[in-house]
Amino acid sequence: MAKGLPTRAENYSEWYNEIVKRAGLAENSAVRGCMVIKPYGFAIWEKMQRALDDMFKETGHVNAYFPLFVPKSFLEKEEEHAEGFAKECAVVTHYRLKANPDGKGLIVDPAAKLEEELIVRPTSEAVIWNTYKNWIQSWRDLPLLINQWCNIVRWEMRTRLFLRTAEFLWQEGHTAHATEQEAVEEAERMLEVYATFAEQWIGLPVIRGVKTPNERFAGAIETYCIEAMMQDGKALQAGTSHFLGQNFAKAFDVKFVNKENQLEYAWATSWGVTTRMIGALIMAHSDDNGLVLPPKLAPIQVVIVPIYKSPEDLASISEKVAPIVDELKAAGISVKYDDDDQQRSGWKFAEYELKGVPVRLGVGMRDLEAGTVEVARRDTLSKESRPLEGIVDHVNGLLDEIQANIYKKALAFREENTFRVDTWDEFKEQIEKGGFISAHWDGTAETEEAVKNETKATIRCIPLNAAAEAGKDVYSGKESARRVIFARAY
Amino acid sequence: MAKGLPTRAENYSEWYNEIVKRAGLAENSAVRGCMVIKPYGFAIWEKMQRALDDMFKETGHVNAYFPLFVPKSFLEKEEEHAEGFAKECAVVTHYRLKANPDGKGLIVDPAAKLEEELIVRPTSEAVIWNTYKNWIQSWRDLPLLINQWCNIVRWEMRTRLFLRTAEFLWQEGHTAHATEQEAVEEAERMLEVYATFAEQWIGLPVIRGVKTPNERFAGAIETYCIEAMMQDGKALQAGTSHFLGQNFAKAFDVKFVNKENQLEYAWATSWGVTTRMIGALIMAHSDDNGLVLPPKLAPIQVVIVPIYKSPEDLASISEKVAPIVDELKAAGISVKYDDDDQQRSGWKFAEYELKGVPVRLGVGMRDLEAGTVEVARRDTLSKESRPLEGIVDHVNGLLDEIQANIYKKALAFREENTFRVDTWDEFKEQIEKGGFISAHWDGTAETEEAVKNETKATIRCIPLNAAAEAGKDVYSGKESARRVIFARAY
Repeated sequence: MAKGLPTRAENYSEWYNEIVKRAGLAENSAVRGCMVIKPYGFAIWEKMQRALDDMFKETGHVNAYFPLFVPKSFLEKEEEHAEGFAKECAVVTHYRLKANPDGKGLIVDPAAKLEEELIVRPTSEAVIWNTYKNWIQSWRDLPLLINQWCNIVRWEMRTRLFLRTAEFLWQEGHTAHATEQEAVEEAERMLEVYATFAEQWIGLPVIRGVKTPNERFAGAIETYCIEAMMQDGKALQAGTSHFLGQNFAKAFDVKFVNKENQLEYAWATSWGVTTRMIGALIMAHSDDNGLVLPPKLAPIQVVIVPIYKSPEDLASISEKVAPIVDELKAAGISVKYDDDDQQRSGWKFAEYELKGVPVRLGVGMRDLEAGTVEVARRDTLSKESRPLEGIVDHVNGLLDEIQANIYKKALAFREENTFRVDTWDEFKEQIEKGGFISAHWDGTAETEEAVKNETKATIRCIPLNAAAEAGKDVYSGKESARRVIFARAY
Repeated sequence: MAKGLPTRAENYSEWYNEIVKRAGLAENSAVRGCMVIKPYGFAIWEKMQRALDDMFKETGHVNAYFPLFVPKSFLEKEEEHAEGFAKECAVVTHYRLKANPDGKGLIVDPAAKLEEELIVRPTSEAVIWNTYKNWIQSWRDLPLLINQWCNIVRWEMRTRLFLRTAEFLWQEGHTAHATEQEAVEEAERMLEVYATFAEQWIGLPVIRGVKTPNERFAGAIETYCIEAMMQDGKALQAGTSHFLGQNFAKAFDVKFVNKENQLEYAWATSWGVTTRMIGALIMAHSDDNGLVLPPKLAPIQVVIVPIYKSPEDLASISEKVAPIVDELKAAGISVKYDDDDQQRSGWKFAEYELKGVPVRLGVGMRDLEAGTVEVARRDTLSKESRPLEGIVDHVNGLLDEIQANIYKKALAFREENTFRVDTWDEFKEQIEKGGFISAHWDGTAETEEAVKNETKATIRCIPLNAAAEAGKDVYSGKESARRVIFARAY
């Protein structure tokens, strides 16, 4: 294990914090609850953005940008939405500072008080639907398929890097449709985009489902979600897609003339994923040696470390390695040749392990003679000597293999830690051990609340692929038509 | 000219506003001074971002993300900086709303007052240098070459879409260096990156220069800038790069151990360009028919419009056009085939002209028979019939030609409208007609101020390539060593 890094078994929470810090992903800023995303962490976010953005565009969406501020009166318009977000928002009340007449520094200028307070966006339904009002007149204007990449502020009291921060980065899609069916299909389509991204890019198996009414987004008719399991058996919600019905169209009076020449309210969806996904990535795959990155999202996919004693040796190795670096780059692989002479190769090995670089190539003088290279895999920590000849093809294949293996491992872990539970005693016992519990639920908010109060477990979702199965609620004993997923969650 | 669009000669200001609106680039939001960047406008910004980001990375920079909020005490630390930004900032004073006990809606919860007010970032030197304090200990940690893409708020009283808005998007580079020379070189390097981008991508010729002390960024030792001429002869500052000396290092106590093992303050630069560049692009190239886009930044580079009477004709044309669309895409050209049957081809021609699409291909039934296509250039409004055979190569070449032509035209315009002026009477007369005035300046803030008060002209920059030339200040008659550029500006 990495020097001084707590193991997952010792202290999972500290292990996570230390990886975020030591791998140079992010840190807490001097501003309460806000994080600094450091270059290495941000490079992962950039890769996530690029992949998602391509998928959004392939599904017909375009990007735009809406204001950071939501006038208080806009937030008030959709009642549930207002209740959901009023308690944790940053409020701008003034637009100027002035020199302190009684001393040093600056004070808020009382003469510059805003007539109406502005809320730093906790989400943009209100601002966007107020804008859509002017964009939507006829069915010809629909569907409107818009996404925005931006920052969001929700004044969380207890924050954690990537997982829960007062400011975070996200994308939010906001679409308007002529029919209910189209909007529902859109919400489902985007959930599937998220699931595909989670599985194929992050290597994170997810359960596709819908939230219970209690856990829905404030203002939604249906909240679709993807839920993933972390290595401590807790659940993490990795993305949500909401069918908003006509709630926001009604709140902001967005009507259009349909094909039958009648005025109708537009149907809405919204969907988003955040920098929280970086937290999910870390928690799902990393080990006691540090970060483990899926190759598709790794800022550096391959690192080459020369092992040498003299400057002459280094020169020989560098000469041999140069064309390999070029070939790897030409194959679209991001590669770093670390010939920094301030650090020993042993230190570098540990450093790139900590940083989760998927493949490490070590080249020493004996390798030069033998025409070989040492290939180390980050996911399995295995090493082997390979001929230098054909190494680019080998690495290319290896990256795919690692990507697939990471997913497979996480899937196996989730399967091993998902339990069908039918009695309340068993439920209470299992929840302490962690993992997902597949159990019957009677469909009432009362039972959901009682289970949460007694065990801290919430209903993560009602899986979309849940088979109909008659049973008894694990807590109340009442009739139930299907199992749902319970877990403690981040 | 486009229907109902004012001409540049009639009303340049209205012409600009109408193009922004009608081409679907942006609109004012319900939030005072904040704009909505619409999908077509945002697509231009995305192309700008991609090109600039690549150039930043090629010059060794990485991206990161720092908090949106600046604690008031941070802003106060660098005195000039504080003075420069205090008067126009959005101040967050509370972190919660609550139900109004006396009536409907939400009110600010007085119990949720922040101990220290937070400023929505007007720029990030303060937050970033407070962070760099922990990142910089030794010369080995330098240089630190970091950029961030984000939103910025400056509470402007008079706003104009893209040109001056309360919230805007930008990138801000913040670098730290071990020596003064390195920092100066960095500031100059980034100015050159901006100049290259302006000239080669926007097709906008720029004058590289430095600002007078009076016009410098608040907290800078030297502000480098690129200045461009709009079609009304006014100047527009298109980007700035600042050498900040050790001002921020001193304000935030950022010291490092240099190679001689001595503690020293780090040297800084910052540099930024904003969504204002979209305004510059519009104002520099567009004509009385609408927007004219440089091909490298056009969201749609080529539009193909079928000209037909019957659905059968359309089917024949579509069949013929399909492989051309594929070929254009394969050549990396963004192409739209507009077969929408709700609009006539004449309407479409006007619409794509308004939207500035660089190349339009018209295909009618006679073209099918003759194996030809009508090729229309947006920049010159010229049309010609070309053989369909080899059309992709022709379009590819044409896009390059248009890109070059747009630049050449703007450069010729600037040259025609730049005047060497040596007397105050001539100055006053010329400034009313517009254009850049190259004149002698005695180097004092008093003269600069007097010229501004009498003519509204400011010193746009002291050109970097200005030849030493002894002369007399055009206003004061005092000695001067070189000419500077005066103009009225956006």
